[in-house]
Amino acid sequence: MGIDPGIADTGFGVIEKNQQGNLICLTYGSIKTQARLPIDERLNILAQELKKLIKKYRPNLMAVEQLFFCKNVKTALVVGQARGVVLLVAKQNRVPIVEFTPLQVKQAVSTYGQASKMQVQKMVKLLLNLDKIPRPDDAADALAIAICAGNSVRNS
Amino acid sequence: MGIDPGIADTGFGVIEKNQQGNLICLTYGSIKTQARLPIDERLNILAQELKKLIKKYRPNLMAVEQLFFCKNVKTALVVGQARGVVLLVAKQNRVPIVEFTPLQVKQAVSTYGQASKMQVQKMVKLLLNLDKIPRPDDAADALAIAICAGNSVRNS
Repeated sequence: MGIDPGIADTGFGVIEKNQQGNLICLTYGSIKTQARLPIDERLNILAQELKKLIKKYRPNLMAVEQLFFCKNVKTALVVGQARGVVLLVAKQNRVPIVEFTPLQVKQAVSTYGQASKMQVQKMVKLLLNLDKIPRPDDAADALAIAICAGNSVRNS
Repeated sequence: MGIDPGIADTGFGVIEKNQQGNLICLTYGSIKTQARLPIDERLNILAQELKKLIKKYRPNLMAVEQLFFCKNVKTALVVGQARGVVLLVAKQNRVPIVEFTPLQVKQAVSTYGQASKMQVQKMVKLLLNLDKIPRPDDAADALAIAICAGNSVRNS
């Protein structure tokens, strides 16, 4: 399970490796919370929805990006809060966390580290044999992170 | 209950208002997590210890500072993660959150907004009739936030 944390939208993508070593997309999407709600309620919605996904798909790993590149300190604080909740929910549900740098994630889907957002999205579509480019953007990002994790683990 | 969130140290301070309207300190301290532990484990320790404090003292309110002034984006992300966990645990344990600006907190203990850290700490000691200046620093900060909240609510 790849996660791209945020307060308004937390992208998620769940993939599995089949016997042939191919990556299959099980689901993807975005956990949304409304801006009019207080921050503690938004974080609680994120925690509840993420817990439901974990219960449903029982992932072996949860993959997140190691470092964020935020525009400013305020954005970093807000995203940090969502990331803290994501890591806590994973820990409480006994899902090990793996962290990858943004460069590792890009390299996992595009063989080079300079890929644009659109190139990453196209490769996610191709690698997972999807009908269309996954939307919203943070769901595509979450799938890219999941692919990076999927490539880094041995076939079970 | 005032909280000053952090990954290594989360300061806490619990006060109550007595019949005469005086603020009494019930406890203060710091929840510490070791740097050698993975981030999800540190956040989980913070969540567990904070939950214990809530169960023990059953606060009517949890007060935190509204905005952080972090040196850089990375610090903001790290502190944001701890803050997210604190807000989530409060919500999950049905403790309402109140947020105050750093200026409001300083004004609550020092009557003016330009007080130094040491002046704030001395006023916390005085206002709560403590034997000594509370340590560590983040516990004193948490008590200052609690005093700010205590002054802002009606006597029950």
